[in-house]
Amino acid sequence: MTQTTSKGRPLDDELTGRVLDEVRDALDDSGFVHLRIERVAAAVGCGKTAIYRRWPSKAELVAAAILDGIDSTPLPDSGDIVEDLVEHAWQHLSNFRPDGPRGSSRNGVLLSLFDVEVIPLISERYMKQRHANGREILDRGIARGQIGSELDQDLTLDAIAGFTLFRLSIKPDAKADSDAELKDSYRRLVRSLLHLPR
Amino acid sequence: MTQTTSKGRPLDDELTGRVLDEVRDALDDSGFVHLRIERVAAAVGCGKTAIYRRWPSKAELVAAAILDGIDSTPLPDSGDIVEDLVEHAWQHLSNFRPDGPRGSSRNGVLLSLFDVEVIPLISERYMKQRHANGREILDRGIARGQIGSELDQDLTLDAIAGFTLFRLSIKPDAKADSDAELKDSYRRLVRSLLHLPR
Repeated sequence: MTQTTSKGRPLDDELTGRVLDEVRDALDDSGFVHLRIERVAAAVGCGKTAIYRRWPSKAELVAAAILDGIDSTPLPDSGDIVEDLVEHAWQHLSNFRPDGPRGSSRNGVLLSLFDVEVIPLISERYMKQRHANGREILDRGIARGQIGSELDQDLTLDAIAGFTLFRLSIKPDAKADSDAELKDSYRRLVRSLLHLPR
Repeated sequence: MTQTTSKGRPLDDELTGRVLDEVRDALDDSGFVHLRIERVAAAVGCGKTAIYRRWPSKAELVAAAILDGIDSTPLPDSGDIVEDLVEHAWQHLSNFRPDGPRGSSRNGVLLSLFDVEVIPLISERYMKQRHANGREILDRGIARGQIGSELDQDLTLDAIAGFTLFRLSIKPDAKADSDAELKDSYRRLVRSLLHLPR
């Protein structure tokens, strides 16, 4: 995925990594509105044309910086629909936690996710795939007879994603919860959303 | 709630309203990081000391601007725990919707809510009371025998609040949903969280 600048210098993977690192630092320092691509280019020592060629807008660049390092881990498939959905939610939480990949939940970075120009890109490139994965888990559960087909899948998946968002933003410091306790909360949430007995 | 500036001019309710309006405009223009209290003071024609006396920090001022015009509507009490929780959630959604009080969900304003310095203030002054109201609704439901006492109340209320947050931020343009449909989604969400039949 290398690309050539106007001066012929390639924006190789190493340079790409440094650009996205620099963008995350800048977002933390002063947020989306005041991010200047010229300054990013100067900091990493490339031309701003090279950056604009690869990411045609600031929102594109920021979305890339947010999603960089976040892998689409394989779809959980343990045979147990509850455990699969818990694992699916846990992947999402882990991606954006303070100790997540590339520190991507540093406040300025997490904040930029909610920008009106950035949200549609994150929706398209991350949430959509997550939602599709969630539906696949639910469909498998229906095929196995673990849940009924009358379940409102969108509502179920949005409620799980919303709980994660709430824990990441409004209530990030519920420190009393260990990972095991938090995972157990997800388990109880999923069971109730699926109308399974406690 | 008037207060006197260092020059003896009162920061009366009318001026307070204009300060908070100006803060919301500034948040929309350039976000929390670049909000300058001097500029707010200059725009409304008061001294910055008057502003600092009333709100000792920028985070305090921003929290006041976010919560301004958001009333703590009376606790719903219809006798039906599901309808009461739906109404409770609907109050929260309405407060922060684009057409909510004083346009407080304009993107820059909604974004500021997630700032690390602002979140604890919003938690303390808004979320805490909402959570307490939610618990009161749940406790009444238990007393009436509508739900069992083994329910995880925090999880239930956080899941409802998270769904609202998700709809406000990541998925604000689920335009297909009319208010009636959205309210019905809340109804189904609440019933499943309470382990009530569909």
